[in-house]
Amino acid sequence: MRKVVLVRRPKVKPVAADFAVIEAGMPEPGQGQMLVRTLWLSMDPYVRIQLDETTIAGTPGQPLDASPLGRAVSQVVKSNIPDFAPGDIIEGRTHWAEYAVVDLSMKPAKLDFGSIPLSYAVGALGMPGQTANSGMTDIGRVKEGETVLISAAAGAVGSMAGQIGKILGARVVGIAGGPDKCAAVMAMGFDDCVDYRAPDFDARLKAALPQGFNLYFENVGGELTSHAAAHAAYGARIALCGVLADYGVGDEKGPDRQPEFMRLMFIKGLEIKGFFGEMVGGAKAIAANRAWIEQGKFKPVETILEGIEHVPATFAGIFGGNTHVGKVVLKIAEPE
Amino acid sequence: MRKVVLVRRPKVKPVAADFAVIEAGMPEPGQGQMLVRTLWLSMDPYVRIQLDETTIAGTPGQPLDASPLGRAVSQVVKSNIPDFAPGDIIEGRTHWAEYAVVDLSMKPAKLDFGSIPLSYAVGALGMPGQTANSGMTDIGRVKEGETVLISAAAGAVGSMAGQIGKILGARVVGIAGGPDKCAAVMAMGFDDCVDYRAPDFDARLKAALPQGFNLYFENVGGELTSHAAAHAAYGARIALCGVLADYGVGDEKGPDRQPEFMRLMFIKGLEIKGFFGEMVGGAKAIAANRAWIEQGKFKPVETILEGIEHVPATFAGIFGGNTHVGKVVLKIAEPE
Repeated sequence: MRKVVLVRRPKVKPVAADFAVIEAGMPEPGQGQMLVRTLWLSMDPYVRIQLDETTIAGTPGQPLDASPLGRAVSQVVKSNIPDFAPGDIIEGRTHWAEYAVVDLSMKPAKLDFGSIPLSYAVGALGMPGQTANSGMTDIGRVKEGETVLISAAAGAVGSMAGQIGKILGARVVGIAGGPDKCAAVMAMGFDDCVDYRAPDFDARLKAALPQGFNLYFENVGGELTSHAAAHAAYGARIALCGVLADYGVGDEKGPDRQPEFMRLMFIKGLEIKGFFGEMVGGAKAIAANRAWIEQGKFKPVETILEGIEHVPATFAGIFGGNTHVGKVVLKIAEPE
Repeated sequence: MRKVVLVRRPKVKPVAADFAVIEAGMPEPGQGQMLVRTLWLSMDPYVRIQLDETTIAGTPGQPLDASPLGRAVSQVVKSNIPDFAPGDIIEGRTHWAEYAVVDLSMKPAKLDFGSIPLSYAVGALGMPGQTANSGMTDIGRVKEGETVLISAAAGAVGSMAGQIGKILGARVVGIAGGPDKCAAVMAMGFDDCVDYRAPDFDARLKAALPQGFNLYFENVGGELTSHAAAHAAYGARIALCGVLADYGVGDEKGPDRQPEFMRLMFIKGLEIKGFFGEMVGGAKAIAANRAWIEQGKFKPVETILEGIEHVPATFAGIFGGNTHVGKVVLKIAEPE
């Protein structure tokens, strides 16, 4: 069996060479553990956080030469945990590997998906789907008729947030990199999409937001936050879902943008709210997404790649330069 | 009569020499105007905003050699406005002058204060009092048993916010400059006060906030925001009442603190909300403050100086270095 290991800590953005795909012996589950076969491996930007020696949360990062912890749909092969039996299909935390040993601390949950694709368990009906839902509802409090701006709109969470915004009656404007991604974003039903690589990005953003935005669903951070925040309507909210550009420490060259950002928040009466940990959705968000999917209103977009050898380049590509659209999942094996 | 004029635009922080107190002819009210005599002139940091050539809100600043617009309790001398008659006591916007011509756009409101000191109309029952109240209630949503941190705790809004926090059942920790101000803050009923000038400020802040803060009432901005935000509990709120240290443009030397601030907001699930304009309180806030004052629960603290000649140094002192405690008001004249 093969697994992905971290061979070097990323400087700021991860690159493929920070990882290696290696052959490994089959792990054996101990007491309170089970061996699972990975079926659908999720590629999520938050995994970046654990790759530093000390994480931005102040906790120790993962060791070198070990597999990062991510999320996957898996099938139980051997189980020393009551309630889990060989053949069960689960979703939960797991190592980036073809087979892994997991325990209850990794929160395995059996899936009952009917005709819904299993991969959605790490997408629209998993962590990214919860995040998109709660960012638009509990955190962002979008109202019918409002204008919502979404960064990384072609990405996993951005694409879902945009569809949820449309379902909830908002005008939805995306930000994405390049004309191809913008075309994909428009095809998902967004009302407009602005290419952040265009030389006249600020002018295009202004044209797309004549009254400013009421809610900005922020996935990126970095310089983009300041550019976007300048187009806030009075009393607008920013749902801070992630800071893709700010996960890695070391990019903090001047000028200091914080004073201008503070002035802007004050003068425009802006609200910005980070959401992390227990604030990210939960069962209510998943139930809402599932109902919309079953009603045909919400059509999750996926990019599917086959084989664990794609992990290093695919994960690095999330931080810039990929051509993937929607939720990226790796198909590792078929259920048996 | 005398008036204060702006003779030079402040660089970052205003200094006394940016202003002059000059003799001027008595102004004559035209149609829809009235002449008022200033009784209690308020010294408020937000006046800083209008002193730049282009304000941080993007609007033109006030002209040089003209009087800044502030707030005062005044008495009507001559009136060409129906419903206002000579002798009426009002609160509203006015020029920094012993006499001024005002119109309805400056929102004069007649006062009915009974035995309550008239100066409270520009303090606990005026803009600063509304701000302190809404910052703790509608914006900051303080709950009984929570820990609230307040910067510029010896200042007008900070001192009121602290008293309101205690009335609402919170543990209240202030930040102030120097031992004398901290002593004054403790005398107002705060549970603790941390001197930001102390060399071990961060350690003292940590000791005063063993569980972190749930709400930070921020009046200062600048470097203090980052220092304080590091002590946030998960899911804490920051009510961004003002950015005293960030009003003036030109202080933006590196390193860039924004990436760290964004990471912190994300990881801690922080909410930060600026409040400005129509978000600042209103009648509900004033009614609540008045009831507490009449019940003896809320005891506004004032520093009173006599004479318009004190304006330049007093206003500049708000931005650092003053020894004043509570709301600073200038007594310009007695009502007749």
